Amino acid sequence: MKLLEPIRVGTMTVPNRILVPAMVTRLSGEDGFVNQGIIDRYVRYSAGHVGLIVVEATAVHESKSGPLLRLSRDDFVAGHRDLVKQVKDAGPSKIVPQIIHFMKVARSGWRQTIDMLSEDEIDGIVEAFGAAAARAREAGYDGVELHSAHAYTLSSFLSRRNPRRDGYDGRTLEGRLRMFGRVMARVRQTVGKDFPVGVRFLAEEAIKDGYALPDSQRIALRMAQLGVDYISLSVGGKFEDAVHKEGSPLYPYTGYSGDRCMPGDQYPPLPHVHLAAGIKAFVNRHGYDVPIVSVGKISDPADAERLLADGKADMIGMARQLLADPAWVRKVEEKRQDAILRCIYCNVCKQLDENFKLVSCFLWPKGFTQAPVEDLSKDAPRWPAAGAGLKASVENGAVKLTWSKAQGDIAGYDIFRAESGGSSTIVEAVKGTKFADKLALGGLGYSYHVMAYDATGRHSPPSDAVRVEPALPVFDEAGTAHA
Amino acid sequence: MKLLEPIRVGTMTVPNRILVPAMVTRLSGEDGFVNQGIIDRYVRYSAGHVGLIVVEATAVHESKSGPLLRLSRDDFVAGHRDLVKQVKDAGPSKIVPQIIHFMKVARSGWRQTIDMLSEDEIDGIVEAFGAAAARAREAGYDGVELHSAHAYTLSSFLSRRNPRRDGYDGRTLEGRLRMFGRVMARVRQTVGKDFPVGVRFLAEEAIKDGYALPDSQRIALRMAQLGVDYISLSVGGKFEDAVHKEGSPLYPYTGYSGDRCMPGDQYPPLPHVHLAAGIKAFVNRHGYDVPIVSVGKISDPADAERLLADGKADMIGMARQLLADPAWVRKVEEKRQDAILRCIYCNVCKQLDENFKLVSCFLWPKGFTQAPVEDLSKDAPRWPAAGAGLKASVENGAVKLTWSKAQGDIAGYDIFRAESGGSSTIVEAVKGTKFADKLALGGLGYSYHVMAYDATGRHSPPSDAVRVEPALPVFDEAGTAHA
Repeated sequence: MKLLEPIRVGTMTVPNRILVPAMVTRLSGEDGFVNQGIIDRYVRYSAGHVGLIVVEATAVHESKSGPLLRLSRDDFVAGHRDLVKQVKDAGPSKIVPQIIHFMKVARSGWRQTIDMLSEDEIDGIVEAFGAAAARAREAGYDGVELHSAHAYTLSSFLSRRNPRRDGYDGRTLEGRLRMFGRVMARVRQTVGKDFPVGVRFLAEEAIKDGYALPDSQRIALRMAQLGVDYISLSVGGKFEDAVHKEGSPLYPYTGYSGDRCMPGDQYPPLPHVHLAAGIKAFVNRHGYDVPIVSVGKISDPADAERLLADGKADMIGMARQLLADPAWVRKVEEKRQDAILRCIYCNVCKQLDENFKLVSCFLWPKGFTQAPVEDLSKDAPRWPAAGAGLKASVENGAVKLTWSKAQGDIAGYDIFRAESGGSSTIVEAVKGTKFADKLALGGLGYSYHVMAYDATGRHSPPSDAVRVEPALPVFDEAGTAHA
Repeated sequence: MKLLEPIRVGTMTVPNRILVPAMVTRLSGEDGFVNQGIIDRYVRYSAGHVGLIVVEATAVHESKSGPLLRLSRDDFVAGHRDLVKQVKDAGPSKIVPQIIHFMKVARSGWRQTIDMLSEDEIDGIVEAFGAAAARAREAGYDGVELHSAHAYTLSSFLSRRNPRRDGYDGRTLEGRLRMFGRVMARVRQTVGKDFPVGVRFLAEEAIKDGYALPDSQRIALRMAQLGVDYISLSVGGKFEDAVHKEGSPLYPYTGYSGDRCMPGDQYPPLPHVHLAAGIKAFVNRHGYDVPIVSVGKISDPADAERLLADGKADMIGMARQLLADPAWVRKVEEKRQDAILRCIYCNVCKQLDENFKLVSCFLWPKGFTQAPVEDLSKDAPRWPAAGAGLKASVENGAVKLTWSKAQGDIAGYDIFRAESGGSSTIVEAVKGTKFADKLALGGLGYSYHVMAYDATGRHSPPSDAVRVEPALPVFDEAGTAHA
């Protein structure tokens, strides 16, 4: 499998093609220091053999914020050194921090924008990135990632809505690129040529008047020209369409561009792969082979492998799937793909973040703040002797399923559906023993089965399947509907 | 060329695969009757050999609105009969009206939503669609299209944000589909089995919590099950993200979903083709071959042909390109593709509509309310004896072009660009003799040429090309930028 082959990223060799992008955890304190919760979170990825771990956004500056890691002073370095050591002791992963600069936001809804920055302040930001990157190297990280995505400072310079009218002029592509160029030059100077510097930026802004593929292809090419060592893509997550909640600071990801950043269950798998493919083709055509990381609802190993085989991406980023099950890579290596705790893209994690709460996964047993660790010494969950007793009925346009409790320390049930002879895919996970499929279409045939999973993420065998064919609605000639 | 082959659509044969979707014109009066301006607009499409003309949204009900055609009473039929006759006298096109029901909007920003509709009002809407469709047949139209897209009533029932909690329950797909099912049944009853009934609906809502491909595949399948004769796709154009302008009624298309509905020059060509392809594959796999119309920044004949050849669509919808040049099809038939007045997706037409002004095209000569008609008896525009004198320089991150005036009754100039040896494509059209390319990237080579076009849309020969290679910006080790 190409997915499990090592890949050269600048001067480091990443053991496989899987990357966990930076994700807010809200495990850190307000003080900015690494703590045990943070270490536990990242150790799991390494124990799970994730190729490249990107640590959550870590501030280059001192500006006040909620819980957030920092590399804005030398005294933060020791904690990061400990994090790196423990992650490396646990497995083969490479690890880099994502370093970020952000602007001020207020509870009134007001936010600082980049046109308010003086030349001196801009110089200070360039310098802060350089210093934080140097601290990342000092802490023993394998590289550093420059956060140039979503609603944050570097991304706002790249934006098609950049309001500046000076040397960073938002009306020209070169003006929009100038700030990133300065930061990259300064970081390269402070970390040296032999330290990998990656970047994350938006393949599409997904806001009114925002940029799309033609701009992002050229932004990526410039990043390659400037010597970045990998390009990790994202989409949306902007302030411009954020929904202001009375009394809370404006928070990105709360508008449509947030939906596109973390596409939920209403989106198809791989909704953004055409963006990675378009950017990779453009950059390669111009003579650069910097690795491009595709992201967005990729969770099936076969899908991930096909992306690489088709040349649409060089690495696969998975955030929510690896949050749910940080051992995804190891289970693929062991050819135990059925043992993966599958992300259902319910976005409970996204909602926790939006509400400024510790980010956990709906699939984890109640009260867990970290992913469960598989316990193979225990029995896997089993169905009762009489079977799962899965039953289906159609009510008010929905298919209702009920089944019996499984035996074991059950944390939840995965629901699988096959539509009209298609392949069976997970559609939902629930804590109880019933489920209503509200997206079934009359006139098609559906087959469902259920698997139980326990508090360590171990799965039961699949239940027997149940089949149902909801009727087509009937309308009389006057357009009246009959059940 | 497959593009120019006839296609069977229900009981009618459309002479080629090009469809002009319904576009607001604001040429009609407040009275709802067909007038000469309307006739002139649609006659041009027929003279230009467009396969299927969809007349702008035509109300099934009497509700007050701005200028809008109506089929809400029998006395509107005569005007439509005249329109159909004149269109058919001018060329081979088939023609159908798009019939619409919309809800009330107020200047305060208030708008009526579908959860405010009583059962009786819903029955009335079903009946109004049936009656308007019957009038369309009486007027001599070749079929009728049900407007089930954008911000309007039928689309709001299909929406993932449908707020009803009764038989039209927004929480189930069947609940969302019920209203369309009733309308389709009633329309089929009033027009008969031998009258084509098409539909337009959204492949993606492009709003927060809106639906995407998985839902639209199943909505399209249901439409096929209900016997629609063609499915024309669109994207976005919703009220939910519309930008309210003080003192004006809330208008869709003004938010991000409006950008996606009419993707501007920041989007790549064919940004939505994966949606048509995904819907067509799904519907075909379930045994239906109802023609699927793809739309969205398709203007190049080779692109359009490839979509059909690759089986990604059955017909090609072009709104802005056919507004710019309604003779597109005829010019392709005559192998005079260079004579096409090319849409640059500047969206002046979209802005005119948003400001409730008569919709014309930026490419037309000043003051024109209809597309220019080519006059082959006159000389085409020429460059002066000394040539076009095209010159390029780089200033503040932009490539500045200047050239000499062409000879003739010049309406404008098309600017073509080739980037780093790629193919030459139109990037802009201007009225004067200068242009600044603000999206050029330092380090790449650019070649530009210019063509003049006159008030009848005839083009000059291309100017000589000019080449320029903007320098890469230089940063010193402290990250300071140098020109």
